[in-house]
Amino acid sequence: MGRWQPDARMRLQEAALALYSERGYDETTVAQIAERAGLTKRTFFRYFADKREVLFWGAQFLEQRMVAGIDAAPASASVFGLIGAALDAAAVQFEEVREFAGQRYRIISSSPELQERELIKTASLATAIASAMRKRGIGETAADLAAHTATTVMHIAYTQWVEDAEQRPFEQIARQALGQLRELVAAAE
Amino acid sequence: MGRWQPDARMRLQEAALALYSERGYDETTVAQIAERAGLTKRTFFRYFADKREVLFWGAQFLEQRMVAGIDAAPASASVFGLIGAALDAAAVQFEEVREFAGQRYRIISSSPELQERELIKTASLATAIASAMRKRGIGETAADLAAHTATTVMHIAYTQWVEDAEQRPFEQIARQALGQLRELVAAAE
Repeated sequence: MGRWQPDARMRLQEAALALYSERGYDETTVAQIAERAGLTKRTFFRYFADKREVLFWGAQFLEQRMVAGIDAAPASASVFGLIGAALDAAAVQFEEVREFAGQRYRIISSSPELQERELIKTASLATAIASAMRKRGIGETAADLAAHTATTVMHIAYTQWVEDAEQRPFEQIARQALGQLRELVAAAE
Repeated sequence: MGRWQPDARMRLQEAALALYSERGYDETTVAQIAERAGLTKRTFFRYFADKREVLFWGAQFLEQRMVAGIDAAPASASVFGLIGAALDAAAVQFEEVREFAGQRYRIISSSPELQERELIKTASLATAIASAMRKRGIGETAADLAAHTATTVMHIAYTQWVEDAEQRPFEQIARQALGQLRELVAAAE
């Protein structure tokens, strides 16, 4: 059990998602997750601070990727182009975990505590995106507006993506939502 | 003490803001707030569920006003026009409490717990705005995009407004931020 478990994190995540779906998030304990994964509680805590963090473990990579997407955009990119670059970077991450995305989404939607956690993670993500935008010379207000627009579009597209009957790629759904926002705010009063 | 206190709520709010600013939010107790206001703890709990709610008491009126602003907009209003109507309604509320807005803002900024509460209240506000938009026949995705755009612009404008050296009206700052967002997303990639 104390041995190096190369796939321990993945096994714990799969076990947690299965148990949260079957019994409910509140009713599931770390001991049950570890047991289902064939690992110890001690191993669980080597990978995750608590049972909630199993669901939000990817947030740091999402942030890194979206920031990297902004950093790597061509110098000529407009703010709108940078929002698109951030969303494309998010798409890469989401497609990697597509298999579990719907399950994770339904678990989070079932719990006010988890929804609050998601809000906090998203606010922190917007702060990181705004900072990456400012590093590209974009003014304070424009960077804040663009960062929140990126996370808003990301969230709305994510909700559609996990339930999309046609299983379209996230990138396509996000681009469509961003285009729709553009049309909405471009329309005359 | 048990008498009807027509201005009790206002006195409790002023006392709470003063104490949160002087001693810090975490260090202030309900007993201290009541004492400063010349009232009892029992009176405090007649008006507020806890010391946190003193800071968020206006949220329900803000929501009612923004929803009413959308409901009252002319039938010809575009989605962009409805976002503007919601922001104008928010402006009415904010100007009424301008005197305390900066103090309240600094107290909330000083506490992660209060910032989280603000995020939750804002998410709930966006849900109400989206619902008001849908009642006007706007599609699901457009309503969600518009509602989150409204709360994003509101928050960014609020932050500028409480610290505005020229003390410009909220409405003017919000309209400017909304116009800036329009320019950002209208620009070509």
